[in-house]
Amino acid sequence: MAVTETTQTTKPRLNAIVDDIHEALVEIITKHKVTYDEYRAAVEWIMKASQQHLEIPLALDVFLASTLDDLEHEAGEGTESNVEGPVYIPGAPRLEKPYVLPMRENEPGEKLVFSGTVRTTDGSPLAGANLDIWQANGACEYSHFQPDVPEYNLRGQLTTDEDGSFEFETVVPAPYEVPNQGATGQLLKALGRHSFRPGHIHFKLSHDQAAPLTTQIYFEGDPWLDSDVVGAAKESLATKLTWDEDADGRRSATCSYDFVLSK
Amino acid sequence: MAVTETTQTTKPRLNAIVDDIHEALVEIITKHKVTYDEYRAAVEWIMKASQQHLEIPLALDVFLASTLDDLEHEAGEGTESNVEGPVYIPGAPRLEKPYVLPMRENEPGEKLVFSGTVRTTDGSPLAGANLDIWQANGACEYSHFQPDVPEYNLRGQLTTDEDGSFEFETVVPAPYEVPNQGATGQLLKALGRHSFRPGHIHFKLSHDQAAPLTTQIYFEGDPWLDSDVVGAAKESLATKLTWDEDADGRRSATCSYDFVLSK
Repeated sequence: MAVTETTQTTKPRLNAIVDDIHEALVEIITKHKVTYDEYRAAVEWIMKASQQHLEIPLALDVFLASTLDDLEHEAGEGTESNVEGPVYIPGAPRLEKPYVLPMRENEPGEKLVFSGTVRTTDGSPLAGANLDIWQANGACEYSHFQPDVPEYNLRGQLTTDEDGSFEFETVVPAPYEVPNQGATGQLLKALGRHSFRPGHIHFKLSHDQAAPLTTQIYFEGDPWLDSDVVGAAKESLATKLTWDEDADGRRSATCSYDFVLSK
Repeated sequence: MAVTETTQTTKPRLNAIVDDIHEALVEIITKHKVTYDEYRAAVEWIMKASQQHLEIPLALDVFLASTLDDLEHEAGEGTESNVEGPVYIPGAPRLEKPYVLPMRENEPGEKLVFSGTVRTTDGSPLAGANLDIWQANGACEYSHFQPDVPEYNLRGQLTTDEDGSFEFETVVPAPYEVPNQGATGQLLKALGRHSFRPGHIHFKLSHDQAAPLTTQIYFEGDPWLDSDVVGAAKESLATKLTWDEDADGRRSATCSYDFVLSK
């Protein structure tokens, strides 16, 4: 009957997705001959994770968030996007030139001057593009998420010049481990995997005449660049740190990245 | 290098299973172009479920437990096994003949006389086989899990005769819904699925000279037999209820099932 056929060919989206997940899990359980004891251990792990603050979203984000991000932005021709992550705080202070991200006098981390340009895919510079920037310091601390770090520390917004260029001072962000004292860390350890993310700086770029972009910039040579625990780091988003040393032996670095926004 | 090759070809079991689950989920997310909003809704659902007592194991059991059971018992030639389920209580009272499952004077449910035999796969009767039986009454109540039901109500153990036969009196168990007020029920409703299990009686059979068997017996014509919410019901485990009516118009039923234990 026509009605039945229609019903069968237009399975609701939720059913189609849940059916696929169910079928995949049945296949995997069957392929590996998963035992009841192993199944119970998995259920116990999920129940333990669910008793720990934010471990469920952490575990899911570690395994899946970068896939979702890749999907939502697969069509773009410009700079690749990258997951926003859980530590973005809107409303970071708008900075005045010369741009320096808000930081303490002895902010942990070596000095970094980050410069670059923002252009469209046809090469035109984007004047007045907004960069909303947030990052950890050299001691793996994010403001608003670690105690004793001032509000909006290493978070700020700046604007590109007429030629699309920008430059700001900050500190080199350290690689850090995602929270690994709970169920997610236990699983990663059992899998023989580390829990490090490579050092990175987060950017949200926006301009009236271009599509907004959320991404992260990494650094070449970072030991975790090829094994980012959340699978987000991409080669195209890595830039080179050039190191210098002053008369007192204090190291500082410069780097640059040219962002390209699609229209 | 030989060592590296060995390492690569003997991926630990946990890694192999988690990698397969990860890969399957990435494929499904990609195939359906799952959005961030849908992903967040799924994470919210899991977090909600995890705040509700036993919803996580319930949801997983609904979708997966029967697969695990099928796997653990795929080799058997005798009566098919069936999931133990979450309401088994060890130590049910050993009954005296004539066998009647412990019940109250006005136990909800129509009277049922259940008879049958226990044999091995070569047809030999098993004398002295132990049947550990548990079931819900006609009002969907299990002792130890619903309030105001006496301890071990409708739970008991009996032994087969010399010819391998047995007979016990009980009430016809009603089909019932798995707990559906929480996140699992919400998901089933969103999928357009009911939450009923067909009526059934649980059995654990054991004998020195045979492999133990855990199974459930269903009834032909049960409206939920083909759509058991936990996917456990099997045609080979359904028996026919034969109804009778006494002078006062009170209905009662008989049924029989011949169990076959593998060696």
